[in-house]
Amino acid sequence: LLAPLLHGGEAERIFSSESQLAAMVRFEVALATALEDAGVAPSGTGEACERGAAEFPDGEQLERIAQDARASGNLAIPFVKLLTAHVRVRSGDSADFIHYGATSQDLLDTVVVLQMQQVLSLASSEISRICTALVTLVEQHRETVLAGRTWLQQGPPVTFALKAAQWLSSMLRHLERLAASQERACVLQFGGAVGTLASLGDKGPAVARALGERLGLPVPEIPWHTQRDALVEVGTVLALLVGTLGKIARDLALLLQNEVAEVQIASPAGAGGSSTMPHKRNPVSLAVVLSAAVRAPGLASTLLSAMVQEQERGLGGWHAEWETLPELCRITAGALEGMATALETLQIDREAMRRNRNASGELVKQ
Amino acid sequence: LLAPLLHGGEAERIFSSESQLAAMVRFEVALATALEDAGVAPSGTGEACERGAAEFPDGEQLERIAQDARASGNLAIPFVKLLTAHVRVRSGDSADFIHYGATSQDLLDTVVVLQMQQVLSLASSEISRICTALVTLVEQHRETVLAGRTWLQQGPPVTFALKAAQWLSSMLRHLERLAASQERACVLQFGGAVGTLASLGDKGPAVARALGERLGLPVPEIPWHTQRDALVEVGTVLALLVGTLGKIARDLALLLQNEVAEVQIASPAGAGGSSTMPHKRNPVSLAVVLSAAVRAPGLASTLLSAMVQEQERGLGGWHAEWETLPELCRITAGALEGMATALETLQIDREAMRRNRNASGELVKQ
Amino acid sequence: LLAPLLHGGEAERIFSSESQLAAMVRFEVALATALEDAGVAPSGTGEACERGAAEFPDGEQLERIAQDARASGNLAIPFVKLLTAHVRVRSGDSADFIHYGATSQDLLDTVVVLQMQQVLSLASSEISRICTALVTLVEQHRETVLAGRTWLQQGPPVTFALKAAQWLSSMLRHLERLAASQERACVLQFGGAVGTLASLGDKGPAVARALGERLGLPVPEIPWHTQRDALVEVGTVLALLVGTLGKIARDLALLLQNEVAEVQIASPAGAGGSSTMPHKRNPVSLAVVLSAAVRAPGLASTLLSAMVQEQERGLGGWHAEWETLPELCRITAGALEGMATALETLQIDREAMRRNRNASGELVKQ
Amino acid sequence: LLAPLLHGGEAERIFSSESQLAAMVRFEVALATALEDAGVAPSGTGEACERGAAEFPDGEQLERIAQDARASGNLAIPFVKLLTAHVRVRSGDSADFIHYGATSQDLLDTVVVLQMQQVLSLASSEISRICTALVTLVEQHRETVLAGRTWLQQGPPVTFALKAAQWLSSMLRHLERLAASQERACVLQFGGAVGTLASLGDKGPAVARALGERLGLPVPEIPWHTQRDALVEVGTVLALLVGTLGKIARDLALLLQNEVAEVQIASPAGAGGSSTMPHKRNPVSLAVVLSAAVRAPGLASTLLSAMVQEQERGLGGWHAEWETLPELCRITAGALEGMATALETLQIDREAMRRNRNASGELVKQ
Repeated sequence: LLAPLLHGGEAERIFSSESQLAAMVRFEVALATALEDAGVAPSGTGEACERGAAEFPDGEQLERIAQDARASGNLAIPFVKLLTAHVRVRSGDSADFIHYGATSQDLLDTVVVLQMQQVLSLASSEISRICTALVTLVEQHRETVLAGRTWLQQGPPVTFALKAAQWLSSMLRHLERLAASQERACVLQFGGAVGTLASLGDKGPAVARALGERLGLPVPEIPWHTQRDALVEVGTVLALLVGTLGKIARDLALLLQNEVAEVQIASPAGAGGSSTMPHKRNPVSLAVVLSAAVRAPGLASTLLSAMVQEQERGLGGWHAEWETLPELCRITAGALEGMATALETLQIDREAMRRNRNASGELVKQ
Repeated sequence: LLAPLLHGGEAERIFSSESQLAAMVRFEVALATALEDAGVAPSGTGEACERGAAEFPDGEQLERIAQDARASGNLAIPFVKLLTAHVRVRSGDSADFIHYGATSQDLLDTVVVLQMQQVLSLASSEISRICTALVTLVEQHRETVLAGRTWLQQGPPVTFALKAAQWLSSMLRHLERLAASQERACVLQFGGAVGTLASLGDKGPAVARALGERLGLPVPEIPWHTQRDALVEVGTVLALLVGTLGKIARDLALLLQNEVAEVQIASPAGAGGSSTMPHKRNPVSLAVVLSAAVRAPGLASTLLSAMVQEQERGLGGWHAEWETLPELCRITAGALEGMATALETLQIDREAMRRNRNASGELVKQ
Repeated sequence: LLAPLLHGGEAERIFSSESQLAAMVRFEVALATALEDAGVAPSGTGEACERGAAEFPDGEQLERIAQDARASGNLAIPFVKLLTAHVRVRSGDSADFIHYGATSQDLLDTVVVLQMQQVLSLASSEISRICTALVTLVEQHRETVLAGRTWLQQGPPVTFALKAAQWLSSMLRHLERLAASQERACVLQFGGAVGTLASLGDKGPAVARALGERLGLPVPEIPWHTQRDALVEVGTVLALLVGTLGKIARDLALLLQNEVAEVQIASPAGAGGSSTMPHKRNPVSLAVVLSAAVRAPGLASTLLSAMVQEQERGLGGWHAEWETLPELCRITAGALEGMATALETLQIDREAMRRNRNASGELVKQ
Repeated sequence: LLAPLLHGGEAERIFSSESQLAAMVRFEVALATALEDAGVAPSGTGEACERGAAEFPDGEQLERIAQDARASGNLAIPFVKLLTAHVRVRSGDSADFIHYGATSQDLLDTVVVLQMQQVLSLASSEISRICTALVTLVEQHRETVLAGRTWLQQGPPVTFALKAAQWLSSMLRHLERLAASQERACVLQFGGAVGTLASLGDKGPAVARALGERLGLPVPEIPWHTQRDALVEVGTVLALLVGTLGKIARDLALLLQNEVAEVQIASPAGAGGSSTMPHKRNPVSLAVVLSAAVRAPGLASTLLSAMVQEQERGLGGWHAEWETLPELCRITAGALEGMATALETLQIDREAMRRNRNASGELVKQ
């Protein structure tokens, strides 16, 4: 129920059950075709897989997969079983090569990578919106003077352009981080049961290359089943981003207080309102950002804790990522949307800024 | 999709959208009746509210509430608006008294309290299952000797009864904590906009008493809108519990290793299996418990961070609880179920224990 | 360098190297005497141990113990070795019974328990100071009206007594939690290498009883080497307490803003001042409290994560507690002292409260 | 007392009180000289400052600064006061320009940056040691076959070279991250009270450039008093690194179990030993690494939480970094040293690997 408020629609879509299943289908079709390309699977396997997969997603099958995951310990096993059954109806030969050579984690990790690509792209585009709004604020408010505030006490004056420029400087660094983490994290996972692709014999590298090409993902030199640093880095980069958004939101919320009233955020009709005081406007978008800033550190710490995954594939650590990373992505998306909206509708009250400074009328050093 | 695997069915039910809406209805009907009892609302208000609420829950309305929460900043406002409209069709007089005197947080916090009651009851009953299994293990294995292990190295021998008794000692302390936290946390929230029940005049206490009675919740001396210690305590108590479950799961997982093989967990048919090695059994239930143990600390830390809620009702901190506390409850429920299942089906291999001890044949002091 | 500012003197004293060594000595003397009482060690062992221990604490020996801990993995081993050497000079017979039957963790955990007793006692006494200050505020400000504030926006009025009473309600619950956690956590640790006290034969229970009596600690039914719930509970209870202190500090810091100015905190001469604006007063005590509120959740989550300790004694989890729990205690003590000082010197400006309410002049519902 | 065991000597040196004071002196001397260079301060100010600073560090003055920080709220104020007094004895004119134009946070943040430079350099050099050891393992063990292990259960075989190569792949990514974060974080902090360098008039940029040059730090376009992303990024990068080290340590600890015994870690004489079983070797270095892996996530989450710093300089958030970031650096250093030692002394038992595989004799898919 809280998704529309806290997460934003786009992130919900990326992580919906339907999208996840569609991505799983995409992996298996690409793998079937890659196996065919490499001469491992018979001709027509890719197409057979695609036709079998046409049944997905479907509510009832989703439910069945979710229930069967209780016994198997992950979603891949019941999904592959069901998909194979669908393919077998059409082509027994092809059915034998569904998921062939791959382990559950190859499928599930690659799906996460595909989701991360979308999340990072969404984040970049929202950051650009925010940067555009900030650049406008910098340009318009070079002469807008307000009290500097340290320790929540007034100090010497600053310009609003300086505030916006500092916020902007962080956002530009976040763009750098997102790009760097994407390059490290968004690569294929494909290693088979223990990372050796043993069941593919000497065809392993060829299948991997073909699979990577079809999915548009670079093939790393080595699988990363239990080397989670690149994926968790995405999480920490998002948490850093949310930290900055929280800082901006806190600044705005303080300036919005009735007793300060140096800025206003225009709300959509009815937003943040109340029945008895129609002109009251609760800063809903800032609450969304600040709640994300409270939550992101704990979610990031969970991902860091989960990095200790045993041997070739771990027990519990991997499972701890499953809901945590999407949740971090979702609240990041919600916070970005909230902040973009807030900055794009920000109204500055120069007169209030002047009045507040005069009321204090002092300079502070320290 | 992951809910059945990681959360267990009962916790999913408690926190489903439908259950949440039903609890919201329960609050508003109780409030309408309490207002009637106290002579604030006209006779028939309670019944009118109940009839209006008969429309809930309904998928379309759920969706609408969720969407409208984006503007209002919480679920209560669109819900109350919709409910009021339903009542107004029947009785305009009664409709004026829906949610009367209450603030959104009164409704939403009380719903959380009602959910916590169910969670704590579920947890107690699962702990009892676990304790029963542990008592049986203690009784059966007073003479079952295995290597003590420190720093993951063999040391002097212990009995399996001693291990189980130590696990049991923690579980009994957890029962104490659950009871104590329930007493502090499971109380009514009812204070109106800023905790004064001002709009009810001198009828405030009477309405509160009647409301508490109808909901079966004690009425605290003072509202706790931004005093979150009792609610967050529930979260820390659950996290402590999950920590112990994680410890037991780690112990079992180590004993389950092929090279140790001192215990086995009987899996349901097909559970944890693999296509190529039918007799392989991945310890799915232990993975569920261990993943919860990785996640609970971060979720608990979020709740602790969120305690800094400003003045009469805060900005962001409260919102940070909304998804975090249910998630912590859900993974706790999943971990409890996983551990109960593991312990109830645990098989001990005395011969392997003897063999492993002999292979080492040494005593360690330190 | 930061200890006096952030931690408060008393907590620094409890966790100083000297105090820790003194507590270690206390344990070993008590054990030597208990062994003597139980007829395990020869007459005079307790006294010999006490005389040998007279050499501690001493800077050079501290340094040597710390360095030797690198190889041994904990402080107990080099300490016991050194102590034994001191005793051996006087009595070879007694020296053989220093630390006899105990494991390193018996010594180190019991020392932590003794420290926790002091911390919990310190915390209770600081909470009492705070409660006294709050009761006075409640009594004096039943008629002091100020704007209620929700979402950092003004709402209907409240009294300052109501604010103080809500803070007080949390503090009283914290006293209950401290007492309950003390009862569970402050017990003897004494189990030998793997919790069986095997090397003491049938004298184990008698030695444990005598040791507990001499240290003033109850003897639990079973050792808790890797059952850390009771100790970690102390950490979560402290973190909950710090959360409430952070909430109060945030409230006060917001009321202290120049534009609000409804309260002042009297600072000691020169405190929080600055060279160029002598009358400026940075709220140092509130910064100390708020920094603790930022840090406590992460430290608590570390303790929760560390609960997964393997078998009879774990690898890494126990070590993760060593610096974390004391740090959490130290910042709690600093936060308590900061809050007590702030509340005891709090000045209320009724006129500013009236002025701010009038400037807004509106009522908010919801 | 625990520093030598858990932190490693070099990190202790970087963060010692003496080193911190020396870095503070370095900043003030560089600033005095820069002010002189820019024509703000009279000729000889730099030298006068240096001579005045010759008194530092000194135990008694350290103690006095630490005590005075309780009132002032940070170390910079009493330090500058004391330094100015020392300078004034020699040259009143110069004394007026000590710390001129700077705020406390300029000094303290720049000192942290100088410390981070040392930490990142130390980390890079330790990672290189680890990579060298890993490359050797890869080269030597291309034919060393052991059981792959998933879910703590045996699966198809892998080579030890593959394991080491996967560990290595993460370490190489960590080197990239360290370099990128260093570039973003290791820049001068110099903005004056509210980031405007107002008291330096039009000389601000010139002084900043000269100061940056003397300290060897780039001058950012804008101060970052409350934009903490670059500094916190260092923390998250270290936490990611520790996560990988924890993963390797867990793998080794599992292989070291008596029942597996596929590797050994040669310990220095007496290390990890015990009095009764001289040949027992507790894996102390792995305990150090694993304890760091338990602790780093919580410390990183604290830094992320602390990012929400208000306006020009915040209340509490900045203070929360002071002990947290150094602690994270210290445990990272300890973990790096522990892992380097473990890998450099790692011994592989091919026969045990063969034996364990045969005992199981099965292949696992999935």
